[in-house]
Amino acid sequence: MSECPLDFEKTKGLIPVIVQDFESKEILMQAYLNKEAWEESIRTSRGVYFSRSRQKLWRKGESSGNYQILKEVRIDCDNDSVLFVVEQIGGAACHTGHKSCYYRRWEDGILVETDKALFNPEEVYGPGH
Amino acid sequence: MSECPLDFEKTKGLIPVIVQDFESKEILMQAYLNKEAWEESIRTSRGVYFSRSRQKLWRKGESSGNYQILKEVRIDCDNDSVLFVVEQIGGAACHTGHKSCYYRRWEDGILVETDKALFNPEEVYGPGH
Repeated sequence: MSECPLDFEKTKGLIPVIVQDFESKEILMQAYLNKEAWEESIRTSRGVYFSRSRQKLWRKGESSGNYQILKEVRIDCDNDSVLFVVEQIGGAACHTGHKSCYYRRWEDGILVETDKALFNPEEVYGPGH
Repeated sequence: MSECPLDFEKTKGLIPVIVQDFESKEILMQAYLNKEAWEESIRTSRGVYFSRSRQKLWRKGESSGNYQILKEVRIDCDNDSVLFVVEQIGGAACHTGHKSCYYRRWEDGILVETDKALFNPEEVYGPGH
């Protein structure tokens, strides 16, 4: 693999990555990459992130089976933001069971849920996930 | 305006915001919001961000005229990421003159420019911008 163009130094080791559905163009989620997650994502063509809460690599789908196949990888003009265009296995990216993490719209000061969950998180991740 | 649901504390004051074109669904850019930028964006229905390099509010389009009209605002499941769906005046969001900041694709270890610039930055921002 060639030299990684991403500027991890500037952003204290973590770079935001936007995850977009390759067919609908919907934004599914936003996560973070460290250098290791970037390298594993590229090597395996899967969505692999760095979990800030768990402070370790997060191979999306390792619990739920809902992994992500990378169709396209794009890097922004400043080398400090990444776009993954993916095929989302299972159809839902959000741990709440929604297709997209952005299932709520801000309308006149209120958050309105505009999309229904596709699965019950307790059935996928187990109780008290 | 109601209470802001965003958790600025968790992210040291800055929350990533994804900016998506309302027609093509293309990702135009990714920026950051502090509380002030969020409030001004919502109040004015314009893309207003916090510039990390200049450490102040950045009213997108104030130099170039290429401002952004907010069509839809979405918040993610964790209240720490925002999606602005916008109409991009002038057609180009990137300071390089490209429609999208993600005009380069990562292909087998090489960054390939897949989109052409729509304007010459020196004509819009002046020489040595």
